[in-house]
Amino acid sequence: MALCRSFARLLCKQADAGLQLTKQAHSVALVGAPLSRGQKRRGVDHGPATLRAAGLVERLAGLGCQVYDFGDLNFTQVPNDELYNNLILYPRSVGLASQVLADTVSRAVAAGHSCVTIGGDHSLALGSVSGHAQQCPHLGVIWVDAHADINTPLTTQSGSLHGQPLSFLLRELQDKVPQLPGFSWLKPCLSASDIVYIGLRDVDPAEYYILKNYDIQYFSMRDIDCLGIQKVMERTFEQLMGRRQRPIHLSFDIDAFDPSLAPATGTPVLGGLTYREGMYIAEEIHNTGMLSAVDMVEVNPLLGASQEEVNATASLAVDVIATCFGQTREGAHTAFDELPTPSSPDESDSEEQVRI
Amino acid sequence: MALCRSFARLLCKQADAGLQLTKQAHSVALVGAPLSRGQKRRGVDHGPATLRAAGLVERLAGLGCQVYDFGDLNFTQVPNDELYNNLILYPRSVGLASQVLADTVSRAVAAGHSCVTIGGDHSLALGSVSGHAQQCPHLGVIWVDAHADINTPLTTQSGSLHGQPLSFLLRELQDKVPQLPGFSWLKPCLSASDIVYIGLRDVDPAEYYILKNYDIQYFSMRDIDCLGIQKVMERTFEQLMGRRQRPIHLSFDIDAFDPSLAPATGTPVLGGLTYREGMYIAEEIHNTGMLSAVDMVEVNPLLGASQEEVNATASLAVDVIATCFGQTREGAHTAFDELPTPSSPDESDSEEQVRI
Amino acid sequence: MALCRSFARLLCKQADAGLQLTKQAHSVALVGAPLSRGQKRRGVDHGPATLRAAGLVERLAGLGCQVYDFGDLNFTQVPNDELYNNLILYPRSVGLASQVLADTVSRAVAAGHSCVTIGGDHSLALGSVSGHAQQCPHLGVIWVDAHADINTPLTTQSGSLHGQPLSFLLRELQDKVPQLPGFSWLKPCLSASDIVYIGLRDVDPAEYYILKNYDIQYFSMRDIDCLGIQKVMERTFEQLMGRRQRPIHLSFDIDAFDPSLAPATGTPVLGGLTYREGMYIAEEIHNTGMLSAVDMVEVNPLLGASQEEVNATASLAVDVIATCFGQTREGAHTAFDELPTPSSPDESDSEEQVRI
Repeated sequence: MALCRSFARLLCKQADAGLQLTKQAHSVALVGAPLSRGQKRRGVDHGPATLRAAGLVERLAGLGCQVYDFGDLNFTQVPNDELYNNLILYPRSVGLASQVLADTVSRAVAAGHSCVTIGGDHSLALGSVSGHAQQCPHLGVIWVDAHADINTPLTTQSGSLHGQPLSFLLRELQDKVPQLPGFSWLKPCLSASDIVYIGLRDVDPAEYYILKNYDIQYFSMRDIDCLGIQKVMERTFEQLMGRRQRPIHLSFDIDAFDPSLAPATGTPVLGGLTYREGMYIAEEIHNTGMLSAVDMVEVNPLLGASQEEVNATASLAVDVIATCFGQTREGAHTAFDELPTPSSPDESDSEEQVRI
Repeated sequence: MALCRSFARLLCKQADAGLQLTKQAHSVALVGAPLSRGQKRRGVDHGPATLRAAGLVERLAGLGCQVYDFGDLNFTQVPNDELYNNLILYPRSVGLASQVLADTVSRAVAAGHSCVTIGGDHSLALGSVSGHAQQCPHLGVIWVDAHADINTPLTTQSGSLHGQPLSFLLRELQDKVPQLPGFSWLKPCLSASDIVYIGLRDVDPAEYYILKNYDIQYFSMRDIDCLGIQKVMERTFEQLMGRRQRPIHLSFDIDAFDPSLAPATGTPVLGGLTYREGMYIAEEIHNTGMLSAVDMVEVNPLLGASQEEVNATASLAVDVIATCFGQTREGAHTAFDELPTPSSPDESDSEEQVRI
Repeated sequence: MALCRSFARLLCKQADAGLQLTKQAHSVALVGAPLSRGQKRRGVDHGPATLRAAGLVERLAGLGCQVYDFGDLNFTQVPNDELYNNLILYPRSVGLASQVLADTVSRAVAAGHSCVTIGGDHSLALGSVSGHAQQCPHLGVIWVDAHADINTPLTTQSGSLHGQPLSFLLRELQDKVPQLPGFSWLKPCLSASDIVYIGLRDVDPAEYYILKNYDIQYFSMRDIDCLGIQKVMERTFEQLMGRRQRPIHLSFDIDAFDPSLAPATGTPVLGGLTYREGMYIAEEIHNTGMLSAVDMVEVNPLLGASQEEVNATASLAVDVIATCFGQTREGAHTAFDELPTPSSPDESDSEEQVRI
């Protein structure tokens, strides 16, 4: 374990020193995080099983990744988990689950793996980002989402914690965020300049205030319409790695995609990413060689209108993850060294009968 | 009333003088125009009711607009409204309805409102543009549509007036346009340089001849593919406001959108605007601060294959209008002054039980 | 016939000499090629009938083309057509059919027609490109497809010849391609620099090796995302006609489109061309004035989940072909010389009754 940690530290140090992780570094830890208490709709805890059934492990293995499957974490609900402030739902259960996840992700990264966390709702980022940052304190976060998820417990309208994780993680916001029961383990580990959003299109007034006042970089759907996805990714990496390379944490909410592509999710919003934009984002992140952890969240199989819709949503999530680990639209996913040459010059024996 | 008129004149003069309308100027007059005689399919007269049922008034109010609902105008069919020239349908009914609408829009604008006319078929622009121009003679028109709607009564194949309104409104075409019964009130109020089309993809030969010969600026779907929507809007404003600011009349035919998004309409054409392009157009127009009147036309609830299709079409129309009046994809629709701070430093009373 | 050939040679020489074919040169030969043995799924031999039923001939005629309908070729299956190398399916049948098609296309081009071959599976390009090249040896190929179709018989996994035609046609690959029974008539007629791919997103490792090692120009969906379709077409023509004009052979696999648009096909792949991108490609190719032959392949009416899906796929294929021959989204498809002027200044006789 001590060895693992130092190996992970080495990787993160390499990153901090501006070195690209080598391509063969793709040993992937897969962590199922069936967290659902961060929001109100039933079913998102079946997300991990749904992504597994859609062939996630096989797809990663097919790309040459060594997959270390940590299974699905067992999140027990904390008894008597009353509302905080008459509003915030299940603080102790979400806090405890995130703590467990943070520990797991930290161990996985320490062991030298890239860590893929499959949710579950987006409050799990409390754990995955915290755990990742324990090993890689200089990580940068790319948050792909229709929503900003940065309400504080004092600005949220819904009371759901999946709309708030970034407010707990951001250093600059700590005097605005009350200490919630179950959250004492959590230390903010990100600065405003460590985050880039992509895909925003439903932002609450307080969230907009935070984005603007703390100078957080974001690319809303309007920005994508305006700049194109190529420039958006260019600027994303400029923001996060303009001065030096560093490990990337990709936190991907499936609702970033257009609802026509990802209908089986809890809070769909019209006008989202196209399939091609989603793949482009993942390709570009893979191409940096610096991807160190991925969250894939909010796939909810109970919210598809049909099995087809559930399958499409799950398959899309698997495509994003696979692309993060080297699946391409151009081929080149596996090496090919030489074209075979015909052995005998005279294999056309039955030729005569078809000549005209 | 005299006061209102002078107030409106003041607004238009401000505009003519290059001043932006202030953001708080959003008092919106809503006019239902259930005109259907400009085309042949049943149901488009239910458009206003459909947009109201989709929550238009509430959405505008939610954005901070003061909504003055003028209700739905009562368009009576003129008896014995025979074909003009054995071809043109219902000239007297369309002429009379447009005259009534022109008067209403003129009064609304005179009273200082931005005027939203919900149709009804696109022949209603005869009235809305005329009425708007009575108060703001220097207005510019952005015509978002799959079709050019600029056939003359002598070039139309269908005989439907919803394909011809711009030929009546354009000064340059007056020697090509016969005097129709019911149209004597109508004075052409636009020059060719006052119009920009966006979204064209089904243009008749005579219409193409007019666009080219009178040098009318248009951005077809091909142009959008070629330039991107950002540049298209940039050039649109260059054309209309390059030399000075002026009030904008947005005449938006829902069939500008792709039929997959707006199926409940009379003359759908493949290859239309995406949802995101539509929102971008409306955002940019809002951002000029010069929007003075909007038409939203051709939503026909009888032409959806299902209630879902009708709802999607109506909801899209409402999204365009709401975006015209400040709805954004980035938040910022309402002011937010300060983040709340936790009152007690020790609200985490029940913390102990969840520590591990 | 000798005369025809010299006429065709003249056209091709004009092209080779950098002259644009004049717009009135649109006499179109239509060749049905119900070839299905290049792949395994039933139904693609009904492609020609499906495109005809979708109104292809009428659409071309409506654009002012003179259509010479060669009917559907009669491809007989060669008896005892055993697997080649225990893998390659129906080599003799595909070889013979392609030979027949090559002869037909050659004659059509020799007769001065632009030749439209409607398939049928993509192995037919063995014939259509060969036949075209017999008359126009300096042709350039634009291959619009989700797949690269350039496996050799020794690298194919599926054994289907519709994934291999370009390996037989490419001069540079001849020492890598065994002589198949039924293929002795076939002479490679293309160089690697004569091909540009558009739309790739499912490329096998050996194919990727070929694209890279033989320096074949391709624009994958990722490239389209990155550059935009406008720049992709610009670079396509730069590659093929940067030094001199030459006849273009467009080989269009309907699976280049997104499966949501073209579901009735054998090997759909997510993330394809939009309708608008497809039209843009065809418009640009038409605008060169150098289009000399078109293949439209892989429409399979048995693979639509509904008649609606089949119709949409067929209609899309017809739209591509029609756009290749002058259909536009801006009008201008037919000449229009002058606007009619009202004959009598006083046609508004019944005006009185509607004045208010």
